[in-house]
Amino acid sequence: MSVLVVGTVAFDAIETPFGKTDKIVGGAATYICLASSFFTNKINLVSVVGEDFPNDAIQMLKERTVDVSGLQIKKGEKTFFWSGKYQNDMNTRDTLDTQLNVLENFDPIVPDKFKDSEFLMLGNLMPSVQKRVLDQMSKRPKLIVLDTMNFWMDNFMKDLKDALTEVDVLTINDEEARQLSGEYSLVKAAKVILKMGPKYLIIKKGEHGALLFNNEEVFFAPALPIEEVFDPTGAGDSFAGGFISYLSKTKNISFENMKKAVINGSVMASFCVEKFGTQKLNEITQKDLDQRVNDFIKLVKFD
Amino acid sequence: MSVLVVGTVAFDAIETPFGKTDKIVGGAATYICLASSFFTNKINLVSVVGEDFPNDAIQMLKERTVDVSGLQIKKGEKTFFWSGKYQNDMNTRDTLDTQLNVLENFDPIVPDKFKDSEFLMLGNLMPSVQKRVLDQMSKRPKLIVLDTMNFWMDNFMKDLKDALTEVDVLTINDEEARQLSGEYSLVKAAKVILKMGPKYLIIKKGEHGALLFNNEEVFFAPALPIEEVFDPTGAGDSFAGGFISYLSKTKNISFENMKKAVINGSVMASFCVEKFGTQKLNEITQKDLDQRVNDFIKLVKFD
Repeated sequence: MSVLVVGTVAFDAIETPFGKTDKIVGGAATYICLASSFFTNKINLVSVVGEDFPNDAIQMLKERTVDVSGLQIKKGEKTFFWSGKYQNDMNTRDTLDTQLNVLENFDPIVPDKFKDSEFLMLGNLMPSVQKRVLDQMSKRPKLIVLDTMNFWMDNFMKDLKDALTEVDVLTINDEEARQLSGEYSLVKAAKVILKMGPKYLIIKKGEHGALLFNNEEVFFAPALPIEEVFDPTGAGDSFAGGFISYLSKTKNISFENMKKAVINGSVMASFCVEKFGTQKLNEITQKDLDQRVNDFIKLVKFD
Repeated sequence: MSVLVVGTVAFDAIETPFGKTDKIVGGAATYICLASSFFTNKINLVSVVGEDFPNDAIQMLKERTVDVSGLQIKKGEKTFFWSGKYQNDMNTRDTLDTQLNVLENFDPIVPDKFKDSEFLMLGNLMPSVQKRVLDQMSKRPKLIVLDTMNFWMDNFMKDLKDALTEVDVLTINDEEARQLSGEYSLVKAAKVILKMGPKYLIIKKGEHGALLFNNEEVFFAPALPIEEVFDPTGAGDSFAGGFISYLSKTKNISFENMKKAVINGSVMASFCVEKFGTQKLNEITQKDLDQRVNDFIKLVKFD
């Protein structure tokens, strides 16, 4: 089934304790599409870049069977740029520079042929932009997943809560769950958030794994213990891509199947962090993915 | 099979964001014994208290079938006292006061009838004291578990490494694993630590669960998501008590069975944090324990 991915396609400059990069291709939608490409070949992208965005990066997405008809290329404008530095613990990062550029007035236009996409992944973007995508769909997708972050909670909480009334799954991290709910306990936070609209909540805890909640149940998936975490950029987006595309591939949105989708999302995130930017996602094969899903099962299995 | 527990029996004064206590009975060995009592009725205690220690607390341990023959009561001296305050996130705590008292010159004396105990739990104590217990055993226990903390790494690393050569299982938290190994990655840290003597390493990550390593395998058990974490004091000791006593009850120290021991340890810790001090461990029944083990299985199970 087709997955419509809406999110940023961007340039990142990243510094970690292990090294630094110049401008490399990044952005939430890029990671989501790359992770998705291991599960489906029906990926529809809606995003925006500037004239400075390299054609071979677009070509790379096409080779991953991403339909880029919804990728606006703004003449005379520049691509969204983010630069950040990770601290030694790799859990905290400082933003060094943000240049919104084409993102400042981004008006997402969903091509007609994308309007009946069955799965919709709203990557981290201004909530009103996410909402404009929802409004353009010709029929309600089978599943809508929305990712967001603290910045939108700080500045656009009303818009965010408005968008939340229309989505099925919300993915946020533990601090954001606390901020959105006003509850410190994640169990209590989930109860509050599930009253805001989403039927499912995924709380991403980085190296500490992820929790999946609905109103009755909770499932926990650890992060795979990795020898060397090199660059956490894109891990959450890779998770989201693996999650939604596993569901689209298996055509089953039961809670039981969502557990497996969380595991596949965790596996995609575990690859992502092993090299700078999208590098690792560009190197791995289906065999690597299968192997790591097996590693995951061994990690948590007991009689 | 019998479990010999060596560790502190103490007074604690605890402050958390939810309240504060006056002096209450605590100490690593107290928590270990209480948790153990759900799995075995052969618990042998070696510890020390002052004349000020209440007789009804000793009576309480006896009622839990703890053999207190190895509990020294020092006339004219005072019991070890620790006072601490937890920050809002409940993960960081400041020590407000430490009065070693009887602990300052503690010389553990293992009664003859305890010297062939099959399971030995060396609770967090000065490494040379832990070592003196090892030296008194008449035959090597089937399994020796040692718990320690950063304080001993800072000040008595040589003694600690000496003790480590003789133990089977080491339990420490993630920061301590990093300190002991000099490696940030927990996977790498485990490899280094397993060369120091222990055949198994348990890395306790508090609310983020626990990892069990041997040279070939790794197992992860999450912490149960709790509505309200009230007081983390004693969680690690309750974990250790549940872990070693589950193994002693099931008479099986295979890696596969250690996984289940980790789960039972996690369950004991999850109870411990729900009320101040030892209160919750004094209230729960076997039925509560069984229920929570089932909750745990539901939390991580997938098809």
